Amino acid sequence: MTLNIGLIGTGRIGRIHAETIALHVPEAHLSTVTDVRLDSAQQCAARYHIPRVASSTQELLEDDSIQAVAICSSTDSHASLIIDAARAGKHIFCEKPIALDLASIDAALEAVAKAGVKLMVGFNRRYHPNFRRIKELVHSGEIGQPHLIRITSRDSAPPPIEYVRVSGGIFLDMTIHDFDMARYVVGSEVAEVSATGAVLINPGFADAGDVDTAVVVMQHENGAITVIDNSREAVYGYDQRLEVFGSKGVAKCDNTFPNSVAVSSAEQTSSAKPYFAFLDIYRQTYMDEMRDFIRAVETDSPTPISGLDGRIPLVMGIAATTSLREKRRVKLSEVT
Amino acid sequence: MTLNIGLIGTGRIGRIHAETIALHVPEAHLSTVTDVRLDSAQQCAARYHIPRVASSTQELLEDDSIQAVAICSSTDSHASLIIDAARAGKHIFCEKPIALDLASIDAALEAVAKAGVKLMVGFNRRYHPNFRRIKELVHSGEIGQPHLIRITSRDSAPPPIEYVRVSGGIFLDMTIHDFDMARYVVGSEVAEVSATGAVLINPGFADAGDVDTAVVVMQHENGAITVIDNSREAVYGYDQRLEVFGSKGVAKCDNTFPNSVAVSSAEQTSSAKPYFAFLDIYRQTYMDEMRDFIRAVETDSPTPISGLDGRIPLVMGIAATTSLREKRRVKLSEVT
Amino acid sequence: MTLNIGLIGTGRIGRIHAETIALHVPEAHLSTVTDVRLDSAQQCAARYHIPRVASSTQELLEDDSIQAVAICSSTDSHASLIIDAARAGKHIFCEKPIALDLASIDAALEAVAKAGVKLMVGFNRRYHPNFRRIKELVHSGEIGQPHLIRITSRDSAPPPIEYVRVSGGIFLDMTIHDFDMARYVVGSEVAEVSATGAVLINPGFADAGDVDTAVVVMQHENGAITVIDNSREAVYGYDQRLEVFGSKGVAKCDNTFPNSVAVSSAEQTSSAKPYFAFLDIYRQTYMDEMRDFIRAVETDSPTPISGLDGRIPLVMGIAATTSLREKRRVKLSEVT
Amino acid sequence: MTLNIGLIGTGRIGRIHAETIALHVPEAHLSTVTDVRLDSAQQCAARYHIPRVASSTQELLEDDSIQAVAICSSTDSHASLIIDAARAGKHIFCEKPIALDLASIDAALEAVAKAGVKLMVGFNRRYHPNFRRIKELVHSGEIGQPHLIRITSRDSAPPPIEYVRVSGGIFLDMTIHDFDMARYVVGSEVAEVSATGAVLINPGFADAGDVDTAVVVMQHENGAITVIDNSREAVYGYDQRLEVFGSKGVAKCDNTFPNSVAVSSAEQTSSAKPYFAFLDIYRQTYMDEMRDFIRAVETDSPTPISGLDGRIPLVMGIAATTSLREKRRVKLSEVT
Repeated sequence: MTLNIGLIGTGRIGRIHAETIALHVPEAHLSTVTDVRLDSAQQCAARYHIPRVASSTQELLEDDSIQAVAICSSTDSHASLIIDAARAGKHIFCEKPIALDLASIDAALEAVAKAGVKLMVGFNRRYHPNFRRIKELVHSGEIGQPHLIRITSRDSAPPPIEYVRVSGGIFLDMTIHDFDMARYVVGSEVAEVSATGAVLINPGFADAGDVDTAVVVMQHENGAITVIDNSREAVYGYDQRLEVFGSKGVAKCDNTFPNSVAVSSAEQTSSAKPYFAFLDIYRQTYMDEMRDFIRAVETDSPTPISGLDGRIPLVMGIAATTSLREKRRVKLSEVT
Repeated sequence: MTLNIGLIGTGRIGRIHAETIALHVPEAHLSTVTDVRLDSAQQCAARYHIPRVASSTQELLEDDSIQAVAICSSTDSHASLIIDAARAGKHIFCEKPIALDLASIDAALEAVAKAGVKLMVGFNRRYHPNFRRIKELVHSGEIGQPHLIRITSRDSAPPPIEYVRVSGGIFLDMTIHDFDMARYVVGSEVAEVSATGAVLINPGFADAGDVDTAVVVMQHENGAITVIDNSREAVYGYDQRLEVFGSKGVAKCDNTFPNSVAVSSAEQTSSAKPYFAFLDIYRQTYMDEMRDFIRAVETDSPTPISGLDGRIPLVMGIAATTSLREKRRVKLSEVT
Repeated sequence: MTLNIGLIGTGRIGRIHAETIALHVPEAHLSTVTDVRLDSAQQCAARYHIPRVASSTQELLEDDSIQAVAICSSTDSHASLIIDAARAGKHIFCEKPIALDLASIDAALEAVAKAGVKLMVGFNRRYHPNFRRIKELVHSGEIGQPHLIRITSRDSAPPPIEYVRVSGGIFLDMTIHDFDMARYVVGSEVAEVSATGAVLINPGFADAGDVDTAVVVMQHENGAITVIDNSREAVYGYDQRLEVFGSKGVAKCDNTFPNSVAVSSAEQTSSAKPYFAFLDIYRQTYMDEMRDFIRAVETDSPTPISGLDGRIPLVMGIAATTSLREKRRVKLSEVT
Repeated sequence: MTLNIGLIGTGRIGRIHAETIALHVPEAHLSTVTDVRLDSAQQCAARYHIPRVASSTQELLEDDSIQAVAICSSTDSHASLIIDAARAGKHIFCEKPIALDLASIDAALEAVAKAGVKLMVGFNRRYHPNFRRIKELVHSGEIGQPHLIRITSRDSAPPPIEYVRVSGGIFLDMTIHDFDMARYVVGSEVAEVSATGAVLINPGFADAGDVDTAVVVMQHENGAITVIDNSREAVYGYDQRLEVFGSKGVAKCDNTFPNSVAVSSAEQTSSAKPYFAFLDIYRQTYMDEMRDFIRAVETDSPTPISGLDGRIPLVMGIAATTSLREKRRVKLSEVT
């Protein structure tokens, strides 16, 4: 009854998923990997005792023994791979985002629906114990009706400007995780978006038509207001915090730190900075989401993060981009 | 060389200032108090060993031995009392706000300028050790150029709806302190304001034409973005936090708590809620601001919070009110 | 029905009590002060609007209108003043310690008993909100039966060696507060004491026959074990922490800090040191204990800190001193 | 150049080490496992892709291709396995403790010395990031000369009384980790030990001739004083804290928590309890110590935790046991 999985794309994130499936999920078997760079796939297979390297995605998808695929290739290939995999009857775990345009996403979701396979999108931050706990507290009613949500999301180091140019802009590239978080934690869709931005870190962002510092205010359908603040460079480390204020209380979390040691001297009290690398913070989440995907397939239950969950944050990102450009509030219903 | 002070208005805030001057500032002498309710003034005088009760403001202002006045009466009397006191040649400490309309403020400031007396407005929150420390860190350059400022300001209990009706609205009544804080801590004026609001606590706020939950996003002239989130009811207590994120780091503070005891049981770790009453948090600030006022008069140096500092937050509040009503961004230059 | 109080000794601690009674306790009236240095008493009277300065303790005690006295003079005068005041029929608030020898204490307690007056000893630390809260948690049963108690008590700066020579040693001079705390919080008497010490800060302590660093382990009659650690010099500030571990959980507190601001930079997270001066930590406790004394007199109820509460910590201190000297455990029953 | 390792004992801790070597240390190869329960060894081999299961320790030790062994069997077999492995010329990683009597340890260390192989003892707590950081701070001189060290070490749940009977007592079974920690962090040997104990959790401990609650005070050769407090049952979770107070400051750490979420409601602020299971706290340390062992063998450098480091904590445990029984201070030099 072991689920047989094939993995496409053995770059950084692909290897994380390969390790998880190969070593940490006894209910699944990672039989095959492939990558456009075959040597990368071979190294990955050797490292994690994976029996077979397929020479192409097509070869992998033609293998009838494979029941599910994990798509970990570059973003621009996600949508077409979803379509191919769906047509081949495979269940699909796909790294976020599905695509940077709605048409591609819609085509992919249509193929999935038609094939009747499962699709799960890897919004792994939902699996961080801090955010999971806050979500539980909101959904159990412990903090009452949500009124104000604050999401702080600041990268430790900015990406290269060359990357910024093709990234789709801060809202599609970075805030998209926060858009997902807002939906996840509040449990009510966003109706309207208002974005403010500035170039304060590096004028290169302006040259690339982007901002490096941004605030997004969103009104949910239930009236709750979410505020997201983003920066491309927090010199003290990766800054990822969430606060939900409701009618019965407030829940908030701090960052994740390498140690809890505090030193008090004649000058001050000092302690560790937050982790600098996202992998130090989120490593465990990749395992947990993959286990959830495998469980959903094996028990034939809905995946916890659906194709629609992959689509809506893009809509929010497009609305925020429009808001920033036109300096006005944008309703999600404007984005089609 | 002791500064002789008269105090007008012996309600709650007036008594706090009376105690400070009478007992805790040896450099000043509180010789006279008055109040529209004379029995209140008499009780106050008895309690703090104040020699004289004036039967009216006029009587107090006519006393040539009095060099400075503390105006602690109700808001609607502030502007005209400032004018009277200035004409009488007294230096003036005035409780915030000066007035709820710009014309009154401008008339008061003009009278002050003409008389050449000193005026200080009691934005006491500037004196809280948390906010002072963050301001110092910003101004010393320790956290670099400010990029994002987050002000959380939530009342522990909402005011009566009858009060809400005459309060001028959440932005003039409550957020005005946060407007002052933004200016104080960033050190750059605000150029544009965008306000979002909701009625989530009590429909009575909607009936009164107001909101009970609000977010204000402001862009400063130096590019920094400030986000304020307000609620009229935080059931866990008075919630007053500030965070300044800059190019070299982030400074933030927590609330003030009655004790630091944490209990870990088989169920959870629990600790105290923040203080519920603003006086538990801010008592010391009233003393510190008064000492600063007295020092400014005695050393003939500028007061640390000027008349203009009293005017600008009202401009910001009017802009925010317009933004909320018209659902658009409002430049401060629109408000005259 | 206002309680009329006379105060003896207008040094630092005397002025704190004078201010409290004169200004903050409407139920009491501070009619008279005296001091061996009359000018000190006069200054104090002027500062706090106290009507009368007595030229001697005798004169103060002969004033029949005075119902209670606050003894704030130097330690060596406490016992004989208690005896005199008791004979004069006054209720007595006395600063700690009553005396540094048991015979003097016993004589004082006998005089109090004979006169039938009330006596309260000023172990003010019991009134710190952290320690009060932990005591409540223990006594309400919330953390179950106490098993292990940890008291950290470290001074910010060592006293002059000349003072050390006459101080009675670290256990009578400094640990005595922690002995009181152990009794207060556990609610079970100590049966046995074991003390360890070292001279690590300044060899002058060894010359004075004392130690500057010490650990005392005590077994209570109910089996609970208390550990006290003391140092004469904590360069980072006054370090006063308490932890009670019991069958149902643990309660612990942190120090008191001037602000709660944390700064994260590219190097570290830093925050404030604890307060350096004990008065910054304990100011409010002096008011609260005095209010409790006045209430006990006015309602004719037992004082919350009795004469016996003043005696037992000295017994513990003598036992600890013997334990350190003889390098063995000492039962309290050995000390008579 | 890959180090070839054989592992003896595939119980809980053995599997942790097997996983580490098989999957996470590319510089080593886990070629063989064995266990007195062969089916356990076979399951372990299957799980981690280990090529060979030896039918006995002897068979494993006779394999000339194996250069190093990891001894993870039950404590009573450690010493004789060390002797056998040393005679077979294998480098040795051995789980703590080496033995519960000094004669066995000495025989094992002698065999190691004679064979000239490396031996490392698995005091894994040294690898926890909190304790490592504090040790660094002490050794770099950042907190000055150590004066007072506080080690809190409380188990979340007591062991079965049947186990307690054969455990060697709390000091050899539980405190032994804290003895190692004291040496590790202070960097000065302990000269004298004084132990106090009580039975407060379960009378069964008394029947077994043991205590369930204990405090050990130790004086180091450099004068520093270490206090250890132990309990067999902390209902709120595994409680492992360390504080080092020195001439230039204090360093301390908190426990490890599953998340950092705090909830403030109208009643209180609440947050997570510490982890309950030691593996949740220490999992990573097992990997880190094994990597250090492999590195020491491969670079022919001393192991960071030597055979002597395995012996001295037993001496301390024996001294503490004597101190508890004879109610006196015991010098380590008394234990031979």
